[in-house]
Amino acid sequence: MKENLSTVDPMAKQYDIDDLYKGIISGDRARLSRAITLVESKKKEHQILASALLKRCMPHTGKSRRVGISGSPGVGKSTFIEHLGKMIVENDQQLAILAIDPSSQVTKGSILGDKTRMQELSRHANVFIRPSPAGETLGGIARRTRESMLLCEAAGFDYTIIETVGVGQSEITVRHLVDFFILLLLPGAGDDLQGIKKGIVEIADLILINKADGDQIDVAHKTVGFYSSAVHLLRAREDQWTVPVKKCSGLTGDGLDKVIATLDHYFMDFSTAIGKRRQHQSQYWFESGLSDALKDHFFSIDGVAQKYKRLLNEVAQGRTNAFDAVDELMQSLLDKNS
Amino acid sequence: MKENLSTVDPMAKQYDIDDLYKGIISGDRARLSRAITLVESKKKEHQILASALLKRCMPHTGKSRRVGISGSPGVGKSTFIEHLGKMIVENDQQLAILAIDPSSQVTKGSILGDKTRMQELSRHANVFIRPSPAGETLGGIARRTRESMLLCEAAGFDYTIIETVGVGQSEITVRHLVDFFILLLLPGAGDDLQGIKKGIVEIADLILINKADGDQIDVAHKTVGFYSSAVHLLRAREDQWTVPVKKCSGLTGDGLDKVIATLDHYFMDFSTAIGKRRQHQSQYWFESGLSDALKDHFFSIDGVAQKYKRLLNEVAQGRTNAFDAVDELMQSLLDKNS
Repeated sequence: MKENLSTVDPMAKQYDIDDLYKGIISGDRARLSRAITLVESKKKEHQILASALLKRCMPHTGKSRRVGISGSPGVGKSTFIEHLGKMIVENDQQLAILAIDPSSQVTKGSILGDKTRMQELSRHANVFIRPSPAGETLGGIARRTRESMLLCEAAGFDYTIIETVGVGQSEITVRHLVDFFILLLLPGAGDDLQGIKKGIVEIADLILINKADGDQIDVAHKTVGFYSSAVHLLRAREDQWTVPVKKCSGLTGDGLDKVIATLDHYFMDFSTAIGKRRQHQSQYWFESGLSDALKDHFFSIDGVAQKYKRLLNEVAQGRTNAFDAVDELMQSLLDKNS
Repeated sequence: MKENLSTVDPMAKQYDIDDLYKGIISGDRARLSRAITLVESKKKEHQILASALLKRCMPHTGKSRRVGISGSPGVGKSTFIEHLGKMIVENDQQLAILAIDPSSQVTKGSILGDKTRMQELSRHANVFIRPSPAGETLGGIARRTRESMLLCEAAGFDYTIIETVGVGQSEITVRHLVDFFILLLLPGAGDDLQGIKKGIVEIADLILINKADGDQIDVAHKTVGFYSSAVHLLRAREDQWTVPVKKCSGLTGDGLDKVIATLDHYFMDFSTAIGKRRQHQSQYWFESGLSDALKDHFFSIDGVAQKYKRLLNEVAQGRTNAFDAVDELMQSLLDKNS
C-alpha cells in the first residue's frame, strides 16, 4: 500500500500535516488514506507526525456509529457486510470499513485484502475500505485501527464497521473499539454451541443467525430460539438493552431491514449508554496502553528479560513464591536507578 | 490480633525466622499464627523477613486441597462450612480456613471475625481459622491470603478453605487462589438469577443450592434443574470436568456427603488439571504482581500521578487520544532517566 502511494504521489512520504488535516476534515479520501498509512508506520518520525495529526483531528471525532461485526470463517461476513453496507449508503450515509485480522501478520491480511470481496460496495463513492494493518501484534492492530477509526470520523463518516474473524481474542478487542457488536452465527445449534463456548455471546449486542435462506430457514428458526433462551439466561445489562436474536440472509437480504432498525433504535435511544461505554473504552485503552508501555520499558533494561524467564519458570515449578519473584525482578529497576 | 500476640509473647515481634520455620513445619499453630502476622505486616523489615521465611517454606507447600467457597450474604456460608469442616476433621484431616473479605478495610473483617460463628469448629484441634487481613486493598488481601495459604500448607494442613462473600470481584480473586470453587445459592431461581448475572456460575466447579430443608426442598429441586440447564448451556471445559449442581443443607447436613464425594473425585481423578491450574495461577500472580509493581514504581515518580489524572480526564472527554496520552505520560520516565 505504501509502495503504491509513493509511486502515485512522490510527496506521500513527506506527510505535510497541515495539508493532511485540511484534507481529512474536508473528506478527501486520498489524504485520509495517506494519513492512515502514516498512523500505521512504525518509523519514529512518522509516529510523531501521526500523533500531531491525531491531536488536531480529535475535536472532529466521535460522530460515527461504531459497529463491530464478527463471526467464524464461512459464516458469510463479507456477503452480509456487502448487503448491509449497500443499505447504509443508499440511505445517503458514508461508510468506512476497517478490519482487525491478527492473522495478517502471516498472510498480510486475509480479510478485506481480497479485492474480489465486497466488489460492488468497494466501488461506491460513499464507502471507504481499509484492510487490517500487517506485521503487528493484536494490540498493535487494535491501536492502529482505533486511530484509523478516529481519522475516518474526522473525515465525516457516519458509520464505521470494524470487521473481525471469530477466532478468539480479536472479538474481545473489537468489543473495546465499538459501540455495538454484531455476532453472526450459522443455522444449527446442536452439539456445537458456536460462540457460547467462547463466551462471545456475552459480548454481543445483537446475535444474527445468518444464511437463513432456502432449506435452512427452519433450522435457523430453531437456532434463534436456542440462542434467545441462552441470552435470556445470561444477560442482565446495566443499560437495560435486551440483546435481540434474529435470523437473516446476507445473500437475499431478508431480515437486514430489521438489522438497520435495531441499529437505529440503539443509536437513537441509548446515547447515554454509548457515551458511558466510550468513556470506559478510552480509559481502557489508556490504562492497558500504559501497562504495556511500562512493561516494554522495563523489559528494555539489560538482563530483565532473562531474569523474568528464569523466575517465571521457578514460579511455575513452585520453587519461588510469585510475589517474591516480583520483588526480585523489580530489584533490577532499583539497581538501575541507584 | 497483633497486639494480642505481643501481650501473650514478648518475643513475637522479634520474628526469629529459623524458629518460625521449624515451628511451622512441625505443625506448631502458635508459630504459624505468628508467621501469618509477619506476612500481613506492612513494615519493610517485616516484609524482608516474611519473604525469607516463605522462601524456606516453599519446598513444603502445595500439598493441601485448596477449596474456595462463596455465596451472597444470607446463603448460609458459615453453617455450611461448620458442617462440612466437621466432616473433614472427623476424617482425620487438618483444615485451615482463611477469609477474603474486601469489606474488612472498613469493618476490620466482617467474616470469620465474629467469634460466635463456627463455634464448634473453631474449638477443634485440627482446625485453624484466620480472618481476612484488614486495612488492605483486594489485591493486597489476595497476596497475604495466598502467602498464608502457603504457610498453612507447610504446616501440614490437608485442606485449605478460602471463604469469601459473594459481592463481585472477590470471587474472581478467590478463583485464582484455589483448585476448586464452590458456589452456594439459595433455593428459588425465578426472576432473580443469582450468580448468573455476575458470570459467577462460569467460574464455579460445583454449584450447591443450600438451605434445601423443610418446605424449601421442592423449590431447591427446581433450582437445581434450572442451574443444571444453565451449566449445560455454558460450559465446555478443557479439563472435561462437568460442573455438578446439587442441593444440600448446611443445617441438617443433608447432601454434604455428596459434596465430600465430589471433592474426593475431583482431587483424586483430576490431578493433572489441578497441576496445570496451579501453574497458571502462579504465573497469573507473577504477571499481575509485576504489572502492579511497575505501576506503583511509576506513580512514585514526582508529578506522574497529577499528569495521569489530567490525561485520564482528557482521554475520557475525547480531547486526547488514549495512545498519545500514554506516550505523553511515559515521557516522565524518559525525562527522569535522562
